[in-house]
Amino acid sequence: MRMHTHQEFEAELRNLKDRLLAMGGRCEQMIGLAVRAFEERDEGLANEVMEADRRMNEDELAVDELAVRILALRQPVGRDLRFAVAAVKASTDLERIGDEAVNIAERAIEMQPADRLSPPGSKLSEMARRAGAMLRDALNALVEEDPRLARDVFSQDDAVDRIYGEVMKLCLEYMKDDPDRIPGGMRICNCAKYLERIADHATNIAEMVIFTVEGRDVRHGRA
Amino acid sequence: MRMHTHQEFEAELRNLKDRLLAMGGRCEQMIGLAVRAFEERDEGLANEVMEADRRMNEDELAVDELAVRILALRQPVGRDLRFAVAAVKASTDLERIGDEAVNIAERAIEMQPADRLSPPGSKLSEMARRAGAMLRDALNALVEEDPRLARDVFSQDDAVDRIYGEVMKLCLEYMKDDPDRIPGGMRICNCAKYLERIADHATNIAEMVIFTVEGRDVRHGRA
Repeated sequence: MRMHTHQEFEAELRNLKDRLLAMGGRCEQMIGLAVRAFEERDEGLANEVMEADRRMNEDELAVDELAVRILALRQPVGRDLRFAVAAVKASTDLERIGDEAVNIAERAIEMQPADRLSPPGSKLSEMARRAGAMLRDALNALVEEDPRLARDVFSQDDAVDRIYGEVMKLCLEYMKDDPDRIPGGMRICNCAKYLERIADHATNIAEMVIFTVEGRDVRHGRA
Repeated sequence: MRMHTHQEFEAELRNLKDRLLAMGGRCEQMIGLAVRAFEERDEGLANEVMEADRRMNEDELAVDELAVRILALRQPVGRDLRFAVAAVKASTDLERIGDEAVNIAERAIEMQPADRLSPPGSKLSEMARRAGAMLRDALNALVEEDPRLARDVFSQDDAVDRIYGEVMKLCLEYMKDDPDRIPGGMRICNCAKYLERIADHATNIAEMVIFTVEGRDVRHGRA
């Protein structure tokens, strides 16, 4: 009987992990679509991002429900308890990544070809690629409970922050040269900020991995 | 014996609520300081914001530890379980409000008097005042488990979003009139965005109140 309950518990944890991975997969897809909407100025792709975001919201609720159910019925301790807490925190980050992808898709549609081909605009795809990779690593680290992979995400975040700083600088120069470029330049700045935030959310998830596995918190003062 | 345990549990819940209120109080203070740093271009005040943020980070860990402790040792059900889950989500929002206050303080120091007195710049104090009020209401709603007050926060958020839209419009005009204003205009845009995000975090906390009290989730599709 006990074995049976244990197996059920394992199945529920597995289910929770699968849900988180599915949310992460959807996020990655949304980031990819948003950036393609941006590169190809494709309103249809942008609309796909909005559509996917509705499913993200349901996913967040489903993850939280599963985690609360595990907390209530299984009353886990130690690492399993910390994982359930990490899951409800991670679902928030994933849902907000979806919101950022929607923001990118909205700005993408407003952009003009000249903005897109400008020096700052051309850096956005690289930022998106890196943010997507960070998210994938952070979620794999979470479900595989792999702190080494989580720590790798931290250094990837530093690289994204650096590129973000470069884009801001390029944007200022781009706009100063011609005031008509201001609305476009602002949209590029905003997209860069959204991507930088996606990378931050991925980093938050990676920090929860260390908390889950090592039982200590590196969220503030990683050293 | 049972009574004793129950009293301990109540004391722990009270402690968790007090911690959340203390975090919220610190957030409000940080927002106020950041906006004064902005109005008076006072680097000392900006530094106080950074200093307060370090204590915020410790507060987040303390809240999470308390909540995890309650989940592990008291194994609450129903509303108390949902409150503990809401607390770990709210601590994240509060900590990120602190980060936004730091962002405002950083931009404040860089601003020039002309930016501050410009039409878009002069709207920031109002946004800050409203965001601070939303946060206070959201946290009171959380610790008093008052869904009516939580719903009031939702409508306050709509007002902040409207002012944010106005500031963006004013910023574009302000920058177009003179390219030398672009760096200052960008800083105002950024500050407005930080304040709008603080209001969003307060709204997230208010949504968790409905989840805690009514057991249903209004995070997506409030109607």
